[in-house]
Amino acid sequence: MPVAVIMGSQSDWAVMHDAVEFLDAMGIAADVHVLSAHRTPERMAEFARNAEDRGYGAIIAGAGGAAHLPGMTAAYTTVPVIGVPIPTKHLGGMDSLLSIVQMPGGIPVATVAVGQAKNAAILAAEILAVSDPSLRTKLHDYRERLRTEVQRSEEAVQPPAAGGTGGSNA
Amino acid sequence: MPVAVIMGSQSDWAVMHDAVEFLDAMGIAADVHVLSAHRTPERMAEFARNAEDRGYGAIIAGAGGAAHLPGMTAAYTTVPVIGVPIPTKHLGGMDSLLSIVQMPGGIPVATVAVGQAKNAAILAAEILAVSDPSLRTKLHDYRERLRTEVQRSEEAVQPPAAGGTGGSNA
Amino acid sequence: MPVAVIMGSQSDWAVMHDAVEFLDAMGIAADVHVLSAHRTPERMAEFARNAEDRGYGAIIAGAGGAAHLPGMTAAYTTVPVIGVPIPTKHLGGMDSLLSIVQMPGGIPVATVAVGQAKNAAILAAEILAVSDPSLRTKLHDYRERLRTEVQRSEEAVQPPAAGGTGGSNA
Amino acid sequence: MPVAVIMGSQSDWAVMHDAVEFLDAMGIAADVHVLSAHRTPERMAEFARNAEDRGYGAIIAGAGGAAHLPGMTAAYTTVPVIGVPIPTKHLGGMDSLLSIVQMPGGIPVATVAVGQAKNAAILAAEILAVSDPSLRTKLHDYRERLRTEVQRSEEAVQPPAAGGTGGSNA
Amino acid sequence: MPVAVIMGSQSDWAVMHDAVEFLDAMGIAADVHVLSAHRTPERMAEFARNAEDRGYGAIIAGAGGAAHLPGMTAAYTTVPVIGVPIPTKHLGGMDSLLSIVQMPGGIPVATVAVGQAKNAAILAAEILAVSDPSLRTKLHDYRERLRTEVQRSEEAVQPPAAGGTGGSNA
Amino acid sequence: MPVAVIMGSQSDWAVMHDAVEFLDAMGIAADVHVLSAHRTPERMAEFARNAEDRGYGAIIAGAGGAAHLPGMTAAYTTVPVIGVPIPTKHLGGMDSLLSIVQMPGGIPVATVAVGQAKNAAILAAEILAVSDPSLRTKLHDYRERLRTEVQRSEEAVQPPAAGGTGGSNA
Amino acid sequence: MPVAVIMGSQSDWAVMHDAVEFLDAMGIAADVHVLSAHRTPERMAEFARNAEDRGYGAIIAGAGGAAHLPGMTAAYTTVPVIGVPIPTKHLGGMDSLLSIVQMPGGIPVATVAVGQAKNAAILAAEILAVSDPSLRTKLHDYRERLRTEVQRSEEAVQPPAAGGTGGSNA
Amino acid sequence: MPVAVIMGSQSDWAVMHDAVEFLDAMGIAADVHVLSAHRTPERMAEFARNAEDRGYGAIIAGAGGAAHLPGMTAAYTTVPVIGVPIPTKHLGGMDSLLSIVQMPGGIPVATVAVGQAKNAAILAAEILAVSDPSLRTKLHDYRERLRTEVQRSEEAVQPPAAGGTGGSNA
Repeated sequence: MPVAVIMGSQSDWAVMHDAVEFLDAMGIAADVHVLSAHRTPERMAEFARNAEDRGYGAIIAGAGGAAHLPGMTAAYTTVPVIGVPIPTKHLGGMDSLLSIVQMPGGIPVATVAVGQAKNAAILAAEILAVSDPSLRTKLHDYRERLRTEVQRSEEAVQPPAAGGTGGSNA
Repeated sequence: MPVAVIMGSQSDWAVMHDAVEFLDAMGIAADVHVLSAHRTPERMAEFARNAEDRGYGAIIAGAGGAAHLPGMTAAYTTVPVIGVPIPTKHLGGMDSLLSIVQMPGGIPVATVAVGQAKNAAILAAEILAVSDPSLRTKLHDYRERLRTEVQRSEEAVQPPAAGGTGGSNA
Repeated sequence: MPVAVIMGSQSDWAVMHDAVEFLDAMGIAADVHVLSAHRTPERMAEFARNAEDRGYGAIIAGAGGAAHLPGMTAAYTTVPVIGVPIPTKHLGGMDSLLSIVQMPGGIPVATVAVGQAKNAAILAAEILAVSDPSLRTKLHDYRERLRTEVQRSEEAVQPPAAGGTGGSNA
Repeated sequence: MPVAVIMGSQSDWAVMHDAVEFLDAMGIAADVHVLSAHRTPERMAEFARNAEDRGYGAIIAGAGGAAHLPGMTAAYTTVPVIGVPIPTKHLGGMDSLLSIVQMPGGIPVATVAVGQAKNAAILAAEILAVSDPSLRTKLHDYRERLRTEVQRSEEAVQPPAAGGTGGSNA
Repeated sequence: MPVAVIMGSQSDWAVMHDAVEFLDAMGIAADVHVLSAHRTPERMAEFARNAEDRGYGAIIAGAGGAAHLPGMTAAYTTVPVIGVPIPTKHLGGMDSLLSIVQMPGGIPVATVAVGQAKNAAILAAEILAVSDPSLRTKLHDYRERLRTEVQRSEEAVQPPAAGGTGGSNA
Repeated sequence: MPVAVIMGSQSDWAVMHDAVEFLDAMGIAADVHVLSAHRTPERMAEFARNAEDRGYGAIIAGAGGAAHLPGMTAAYTTVPVIGVPIPTKHLGGMDSLLSIVQMPGGIPVATVAVGQAKNAAILAAEILAVSDPSLRTKLHDYRERLRTEVQRSEEAVQPPAAGGTGGSNA
Repeated sequence: MPVAVIMGSQSDWAVMHDAVEFLDAMGIAADVHVLSAHRTPERMAEFARNAEDRGYGAIIAGAGGAAHLPGMTAAYTTVPVIGVPIPTKHLGGMDSLLSIVQMPGGIPVATVAVGQAKNAAILAAEILAVSDPSLRTKLHDYRERLRTEVQRSEEAVQPPAAGGTGGSNA
Repeated sequence: MPVAVIMGSQSDWAVMHDAVEFLDAMGIAADVHVLSAHRTPERMAEFARNAEDRGYGAIIAGAGGAAHLPGMTAAYTTVPVIGVPIPTKHLGGMDSLLSIVQMPGGIPVATVAVGQAKNAAILAAEILAVSDPSLRTKLHDYRERLRTEVQRSEEAVQPPAAGGTGGSNA
């Protein structure tokens, strides 16, 4: 079951390619499009209206500022839409976050952290895994790798050698 | 030249009727619609696409939370769109404000203060007045009334009688 | 496929019952639990570890303040977790929102608007509908009802009678 | 019909020249002035009082911090005033935004996004286009160019080659 | 030496009368005016230009939202201007605070806490006391009263009787 | 080992009595004082300088707004100081929180949630329990009661009766 | 009449030297001290208690984060205290601003913009000028120089040459 | 009595090593671990459950974003937990701060300033010093060094030479 990855502007790609990489690593096909809710509303609407027929299991939508792409996509389809708030230069992405997550009753967007396109892809994989046991296994393997990574990183955080004085810091 | 006043939900009417009242007082015809960007996206798009043909001089759009109605209307028309951030229960309307004002390059929304539907109507009147001298005269009269009101209100702010001690407050 | 609805405290029920009502209306079985990440961490962990075996298609988790329940549940399972930020008395729920949505890479939580438990349930239904065409049909029907409701509400937003002067407001 | 572009300080020019460039591209004459509400209040007042006589169709005013220039200009004229919140070093422009958009009843400022001088110019063009069909045509052409640009940018967002493993990212 | 107390709207009087009461208790003459930077800019400018000639030792200015009155008054005079951010319904007064305190280089406004009109009056008294030893004595007396009040209030905060169990709270 | 509970104003008692009740329930002696960093700085300093001699195991300090009491008490003693941000009328307590938690290097304040005086008392008990095993046992008992309470509350969150339609909500 | 310029840490000097430069240019003597409310509370208290005897006309105090220096200085003296919120690395200075401006009833601090040490010095000069006509004249001269500077800067903001197409920007 | 220093990710070490250095300088043994509440929940739980048996006097926990490590550690132990909000790229650490400090009733976390790992270590030392007089003496010495440092730094803040004109700055 394929997943769509859409974004409001080419510049969002720097954030959104993380999503595509993760989907690819999980063996999930990804359709990638630049679709602006504001500059190409008709094309965006057409894309969203056809999402069910194309068989998407989820749509990942990244947008920044007055970020309307995830919510407007959700308005045209019942395929789960996952919103990625793109960081913004002046307000840090707080504008993107509120514009995506604060959807009114009836039309939800599954929002992830500011700039966290990879988590959007993991969430998409979790959604597909609800009816795909082999994908669930892959997610378990991924979790296992995360666990191992954390444990290994412990070697990197070494306290100063015994007897240190801490010098100027203390 | 008529003005459209649209809102995302019936509950926004408590805020938005101020706009219609002002337009009415200025003799400007107002078309009022409930149009939800999220729940009735097709009807919203159709409305916005026809805005120029209907001869609207401006569109006033109120919405709250992830407020997409003003920006999406602007995406479908070059008629000036004025956005009114509707106050929200939990975040005070900061979500509505950022969702409306932080539009990306290419598609502006003329945003007014949180809950200030009357100012949206005044702005619409100012836009029509650019090519309608009699409306400009009415706006001058309105400004004059504002001035008079402020001056009159001065009588209401009386310092305590001379010789007061200020008691517990000081 | 059942859905779990969990919350950190009994007081969250005032918000969370909206989720259970929607699931019920869609014919989706809901398991409801009060599980505190902080006060009953073992029970919460046990619940989350067993979520896949119980066959949940999604877990809806509501919590307020330093809201750790959604993220900690997600830490123990690959079942999609949907987080509902419960409004808070002093900070409006901004603390709940950031504590839920800003998850680090690897463990996503699908976050909805502050207090929007119903949207969490709709999202859960959309997730189940990915592999359940009859549920998708029900979601289409629900969307249709939303559309009709908005259109009907238009009668309630009547401009003042023609010839009105707008009186003191203008 | 000319448009005025004013700003509170020479340093705002780095942001505001975008507005002048767009107006120029649309064939709209622009008068550019540095006018500080705080340091040159008399000159600012005189400018604003004469705005109608000079025939401006709109005034674009940029200011940062306790940004009073747009609101004070609006206090002296009924020409539509468009406010551009200039980004600030420490608070990101949130101070500029609130100082411009939160105008009290009676005197609106049409506020655009933080740093979005170009959108202010587009809004000015939309206001002039209300009574200038040839300008509306130019705006339609501009919209068309935006659309084309977005569509072309899609080539730049290519998923990794099929069969990729996503390596360390997953 | 008299002090002026000005405010942008009659509704600000509910907050601002605290200032007048304190000045009265200190025996400082207060001139009270409603002057709107936006609705009566000419009258505001004239007032501020004459402030030095009227011999004001300080001007206390309260305003809310896009609060321009304190900063614009300061633009027209070198008499110290003390700004009182009036609380606002939707944003709590954060908009008023930033609009008053974030003045650009050259024109300061001495800002006090949101809604703290009494502190503005105390600050005005401190400014006059720089060259008025008898007023300084009064301020010392006032401080002494504050001290006594705090000490007396200690009786009101009694721990529960010994042997209490804390019941349901613990 | 006693604990001190201090607050900047009598009005803080409404929040702070929760701390005294918990300490009492744990059998910890509490000294309660109203001490204002701003209105009684000498008395506050004297109190803090003597805290070690009085044998306090911790000092719980509540204050609101520009909340200086916890940090200034910490400046005069090495007894652990626990800060309780008192909610404020206009800014919700965000001002209190930042004024207490953002202490510079060298002088920490152990900050708890806005309005959470009870948690301050629990933290004080945890600090005393480091060298008091019988108090640790009481804390374990308290945790056990919390656990039981959460489990019992589950009965209160009952889904609607099977077969319900969810009516208007869905 | 001298003015004191104090700061909580040597690193604040990068911001605070602007204040000393302005005072020097106005011929006002400045006493400069590093005084930490938290690390040297006794020395800070002693300094503040002696401020009236030393004849200071104002005290300018800069501090960052949980910025207690201005408020605590004000607690020990009735000399007007002007607070300068020092920008902070992570929160931009919003913490400093709220910690300084939100003073409780009874003890005001005259707060200026984040990082605006020069405005603090101008405010100090305005306070001294209340009883020093020659200083007021200097302030008028300074205002005149500000005016001239703004007017001159207008030459720097030149629109693009007539006939420009605006190219890629439009 | 040893102290544990834990963090959610290896990248937090850049902030957290300050804590270990201070503990080392005070002669306090530190156990350092990377433990992710989200990626290694079982290991985190096991660590926290054993904290009392290992005899830790305090646990310092650093985490960023939806920072659950401090609160979840506190959920499993009655050893005092000190939370360090790690600065975040997009929201400055405000998300980390609220996720750590806003703990619900029953389970406190002693929160310090964003990025202030050293203050967490000082707080841990203060907690141990409650029952360790020799450590209290070391803390007094450290305070004395802070005092001396501040006093010495005064030489570095020299006003410009007498007679300076302040040039362009004034």
